[in-house]
Amino acid sequence: MKILLINPNTTEALTDLLGDAARSVLPAGTTLDCVTAERGVPYISTRTEAIVGGLSVLEILAQHHRNYDAAIVAAFGDPGLGAARELYDIPVVGLAEAGMLSACMLGAKFSIVTFAQALGPWYRECVEWHGLAGRCSGVRMLDGTFRDISDVQGEKADLLVELANRAIDEDGADVIVLAGAPLAGLAPQVRDRIPVPVVDCAQAALLQAAALAALKPVGATRGSFARPAAKGSTGLGDALAKRIAHEDAA
Amino acid sequence: MKILLINPNTTEALTDLLGDAARSVLPAGTTLDCVTAERGVPYISTRTEAIVGGLSVLEILAQHHRNYDAAIVAAFGDPGLGAARELYDIPVVGLAEAGMLSACMLGAKFSIVTFAQALGPWYRECVEWHGLAGRCSGVRMLDGTFRDISDVQGEKADLLVELANRAIDEDGADVIVLAGAPLAGLAPQVRDRIPVPVVDCAQAALLQAAALAALKPVGATRGSFARPAAKGSTGLGDALAKRIAHEDAA
Amino acid sequence: MKILLINPNTTEALTDLLGDAARSVLPAGTTLDCVTAERGVPYISTRTEAIVGGLSVLEILAQHHRNYDAAIVAAFGDPGLGAARELYDIPVVGLAEAGMLSACMLGAKFSIVTFAQALGPWYRECVEWHGLAGRCSGVRMLDGTFRDISDVQGEKADLLVELANRAIDEDGADVIVLAGAPLAGLAPQVRDRIPVPVVDCAQAALLQAAALAALKPVGATRGSFARPAAKGSTGLGDALAKRIAHEDAA
Amino acid sequence: MKILLINPNTTEALTDLLGDAARSVLPAGTTLDCVTAERGVPYISTRTEAIVGGLSVLEILAQHHRNYDAAIVAAFGDPGLGAARELYDIPVVGLAEAGMLSACMLGAKFSIVTFAQALGPWYRECVEWHGLAGRCSGVRMLDGTFRDISDVQGEKADLLVELANRAIDEDGADVIVLAGAPLAGLAPQVRDRIPVPVVDCAQAALLQAAALAALKPVGATRGSFARPAAKGSTGLGDALAKRIAHEDAA
Amino acid sequence: MKILLINPNTTEALTDLLGDAARSVLPAGTTLDCVTAERGVPYISTRTEAIVGGLSVLEILAQHHRNYDAAIVAAFGDPGLGAARELYDIPVVGLAEAGMLSACMLGAKFSIVTFAQALGPWYRECVEWHGLAGRCSGVRMLDGTFRDISDVQGEKADLLVELANRAIDEDGADVIVLAGAPLAGLAPQVRDRIPVPVVDCAQAALLQAAALAALKPVGATRGSFARPAAKGSTGLGDALAKRIAHEDAA
Amino acid sequence: MKILLINPNTTEALTDLLGDAARSVLPAGTTLDCVTAERGVPYISTRTEAIVGGLSVLEILAQHHRNYDAAIVAAFGDPGLGAARELYDIPVVGLAEAGMLSACMLGAKFSIVTFAQALGPWYRECVEWHGLAGRCSGVRMLDGTFRDISDVQGEKADLLVELANRAIDEDGADVIVLAGAPLAGLAPQVRDRIPVPVVDCAQAALLQAAALAALKPVGATRGSFARPAAKGSTGLGDALAKRIAHEDAA
Repeated sequence: MKILLINPNTTEALTDLLGDAARSVLPAGTTLDCVTAERGVPYISTRTEAIVGGLSVLEILAQHHRNYDAAIVAAFGDPGLGAARELYDIPVVGLAEAGMLSACMLGAKFSIVTFAQALGPWYRECVEWHGLAGRCSGVRMLDGTFRDISDVQGEKADLLVELANRAIDEDGADVIVLAGAPLAGLAPQVRDRIPVPVVDCAQAALLQAAALAALKPVGATRGSFARPAAKGSTGLGDALAKRIAHEDAA
Repeated sequence: MKILLINPNTTEALTDLLGDAARSVLPAGTTLDCVTAERGVPYISTRTEAIVGGLSVLEILAQHHRNYDAAIVAAFGDPGLGAARELYDIPVVGLAEAGMLSACMLGAKFSIVTFAQALGPWYRECVEWHGLAGRCSGVRMLDGTFRDISDVQGEKADLLVELANRAIDEDGADVIVLAGAPLAGLAPQVRDRIPVPVVDCAQAALLQAAALAALKPVGATRGSFARPAAKGSTGLGDALAKRIAHEDAA
Repeated sequence: MKILLINPNTTEALTDLLGDAARSVLPAGTTLDCVTAERGVPYISTRTEAIVGGLSVLEILAQHHRNYDAAIVAAFGDPGLGAARELYDIPVVGLAEAGMLSACMLGAKFSIVTFAQALGPWYRECVEWHGLAGRCSGVRMLDGTFRDISDVQGEKADLLVELANRAIDEDGADVIVLAGAPLAGLAPQVRDRIPVPVVDCAQAALLQAAALAALKPVGATRGSFARPAAKGSTGLGDALAKRIAHEDAA
Repeated sequence: MKILLINPNTTEALTDLLGDAARSVLPAGTTLDCVTAERGVPYISTRTEAIVGGLSVLEILAQHHRNYDAAIVAAFGDPGLGAARELYDIPVVGLAEAGMLSACMLGAKFSIVTFAQALGPWYRECVEWHGLAGRCSGVRMLDGTFRDISDVQGEKADLLVELANRAIDEDGADVIVLAGAPLAGLAPQVRDRIPVPVVDCAQAALLQAAALAALKPVGATRGSFARPAAKGSTGLGDALAKRIAHEDAA
Repeated sequence: MKILLINPNTTEALTDLLGDAARSVLPAGTTLDCVTAERGVPYISTRTEAIVGGLSVLEILAQHHRNYDAAIVAAFGDPGLGAARELYDIPVVGLAEAGMLSACMLGAKFSIVTFAQALGPWYRECVEWHGLAGRCSGVRMLDGTFRDISDVQGEKADLLVELANRAIDEDGADVIVLAGAPLAGLAPQVRDRIPVPVVDCAQAALLQAAALAALKPVGATRGSFARPAAKGSTGLGDALAKRIAHEDAA
Repeated sequence: MKILLINPNTTEALTDLLGDAARSVLPAGTTLDCVTAERGVPYISTRTEAIVGGLSVLEILAQHHRNYDAAIVAAFGDPGLGAARELYDIPVVGLAEAGMLSACMLGAKFSIVTFAQALGPWYRECVEWHGLAGRCSGVRMLDGTFRDISDVQGEKADLLVELANRAIDEDGADVIVLAGAPLAGLAPQVRDRIPVPVVDCAQAALLQAAALAALKPVGATRGSFARPAAKGSTGLGDALAKRIAHEDAA
């Protein structure tokens, strides 16, 4: 089984973090490849940047989807996830989606804990889009800035543990979801300091991508995720334009 | 007062339809300019195409926002609306948003009536995003195909009137929202054949853009629509990249 | 275009405040007339008083609706709004409705800020009735009493600004709705001290009434706002009784 | 224990129907008095008429509340219920409220079955106001007209039984609420023809009023139903004006 | 009329408390019998214990239901209530259900106040199951432990009054529901110290059981509470097994 | 990694079906053991039977949980799932939960398709309990009876395919969840006849149990799933009583 992890951020160091965390739970017989977006911002944290990142996801999938059994959109707000699911036949899972749904199986309410205030609005819209607001006990964000997006967890681990504990005590969280690509791999390191289950989204996403691939679902030809009819376009990358035009090989 | 109408579809004929409908209710002393997307698809109808169209909206606003008092995202699913509201200080209103909120003031439940099955899933996500599912009595779509996106209303007017009447009788609609840029200007022509108020989204959007501009709101510097901090990017249009980097003139 | 503003409170000074605020955004070619309720209380703030005020709204409309293109129910809880919409053919918009829906186009979440604790329960029921609880980040009310209902804004402006800022910081408001007829006209004076858009409900209501009139909606003859069948009554004002009995001129 | 049944409709024959049904379940030691509204319409069925009826309820309570341990608002949409609960200290229960809450204890979902299309919109708003939309499987209304409001059940019993059975089979109702004052007393006559529990609202309201009185609740002096502060008024009935002004005897 | 109160806890002293409180509002001509569970825990406070208690309820009803007109499940989380309603034809009401629905008729929002943190999660699931989350302003629990489950109210009355007052002031409760079998009979003793109505669940449950019995509902033969088809079983109590197998007398 | 599948039904043939389906997707290095309930009914389909089955789940886990890394509650309504999650430290996943959450990652709306009308009410309560009503487009059940619970899929496969197709076309399902232990293993056989992804719940449950175990979550010591305090009990199985009393080995 082959899985593709797509980092919609342009920072290679984040791709490495995500890949390392995902590989730590890689089932036997499964391989993981990682691709970093070439267009976009170093780290997506706004609605604007999610649109840019979503387009990068679609373009990367246009180039690579035929070689994989499942794919991961590896930014917490799941940019482009619905579009990817509509346009391609392989299972595609989002980092936020995998983390939140895994959390749902470990308790009744999960709280999302992340490292920057800027992420809150986008993350909350992501929770709503997934229809999981009723399961989410809150989104908690650290105040202040960080030095380096690729070493956020080194810098902020203690503060994040403290914030997670407040989410448990004050918001009633049964499970903590450590959110954001820069936190990939942190959960296993801090779980002994947090008195409820903690989900690592990169691990969860890899496991869910593998699980979905194992179910061998057919690509939808009806319903709201059936592949759209062929259409011409202007100004898109070549592979994506061909996919939209049904001019890629069947 | 100057208003900018952005057509995220690449079809100029739709821009003309939208502009004509909007101008039919233009308040004295207000001017309207219209811009057509250069990148994208002739007519947006899927989640994928909404991402592409959303990016075009952001790029067009990057070039033009300083010259206008308000802007309209003139595709029914409101592609890029949240991002535009976050990135620019002028009021920006969506075609769907304006149509639905106007409908809310004319009855308790509105139904969305449109011309193609493909539009349903995207439109329903749009209703949800706006938090208006409780006010929406349904989305009704015509079956079948159409000959020419720029003459849908000529071809389908009778069928749309019939569908609107079914939405009233079977779904309990108090108001009908005729949805989709290709239907701009149709409502005034058919309102005598539909026994409840019918909203023309292009008219509603122009009137709402003008109303918001008249309120002279400040641009948010706090809350979830405060302008994001400056950030570098790769591969975006020059004006948009500068706006994201805070390198455009204040 | 002629618009009627109905003040369901019996205080003329509030009518003047509302009229002045509304006229500050009056579109060219539009005229505004204002009427003050003769029956009721000086300032509506309870469920009981809303019933009394609602009946006054219906009676005033019975006398005047034929001469206007749209009407405004100018008390924040929108007393009698649904009934007015059912009984008369011209568009009728509520002060709360116009303020809240305008706010929806300026951000994701709005908070209502007002000057007295007593208003909270009625305002919250109003938010629910409009189906906007999901968009409302809270209702904030000043503690304490006020000297004179016609000079609340003079007395309380600083405290209201402070309360609005707390709604932004603690409740996550993207937009502030300054609520209650006594606050009409305050928003433009304080908007530079509040870091998100602030909506003046009297301005919003005038603009929305004008926008709805411009859409020229037909009066509903089906759906839940179709005019009810003729019925006799006892003890109502003459004009209202005739309207209910279908004995007014067509 | 003394209970007051207030018929907000002006039709005495309905008061008799309601009183007879309620007395059929009168607990030992309890007495029931009935009052008919003097102002209003023969039978309330619209939002407009509910405002008129609500005011009559408040005026009747102003005159009589001191002599009773609990009161019933005996029209299905519960006109004036929230206001009555705020203004008076005795428990007040609505016909709809009592019927729906009793139904909630007999199954998971109840359907409302009534005799005229006109009642639907008002009844649905009543379900929403009570926060019971999640428990309501639908509102079913007969088509067509009726000969005499005081003999609706004689004329329509068979059709209502048929409609109730459709609500069970097609909407998934676990319980049927026969709604509207004109149907008072019908449930016991038809319950053998309906294969789920059927609630008679007049019986339910009497039993709930007696139950609430037995709980001997204090009148609220805090919370959203605390009696409002004293206020002057213009044009109201003398007893109601005094109650609002706190000029009635303590 | 004969009513059966089932205490799913194994503590006889709680049965006595519940019985005394219920009998304080027993209508003339009604008798109450009480049964204590033989299997289970002294005091149910977790999801696990609710399953055990639910089974005891079903077994007790299997033995006794033919001799009663209505039954009460006398633990606040209503263990086994849905199952009991499905399996037996007499009305069965839960302690929580009766308390919450009575509270709904005394205000808009109720808060649940109880004596131990452990009860919170189970109580919240109970509120959700009844579809009443929209009416519930919160669940407040005392910190700390208690000496003796049968004298909780003696030990904790002052703290519970204080907690109730905080629920009113901080959560906006209009009504207080004192929750948990150990608090049966407390409400009448403390209601003068709490400025909104306070519901005693044992009193409410007795009154609701009597009210439902007076409605004389038929047992459902359709809908989701129709008695299930006959089925064999292994390892259940004899009476319950026969009920499930339809081998009890008709 | 060792996983325990608990069949709360007493039918061994169903355990075999479930085990075979689960083993078809068993990751390398994982072992699966299956246990059949000794107490209960051959096939759980009601609220009553779910309580009995839930208790069996708890008792089986009391005996076996120390030997496994994760467990599966293998009946679609997930009897005892919340209690199991509260009482034991290993991850426990439900058949319904795993099926529904997997479906959430394959589309926006899933429909549940099953083989008997009796299952509907219990399944709907299960969807609600999981907070997934907003993602569920419906529960569809075959009419009629079946010959043998262990050969339902042989007998009903064609009808279930037809029902699934109706759920897609009429209810808007993006994904089909074939529900109920007797359908374990059916999805892979029929997926080519259904034009959207189809989830086999036994496969999904095995994959989710393995995924959760791979996340190595700590057992909660805070939050609503922290292990309850020690308590005595009467009449429970020995292992379960000891677990509740904290008398099992740490």
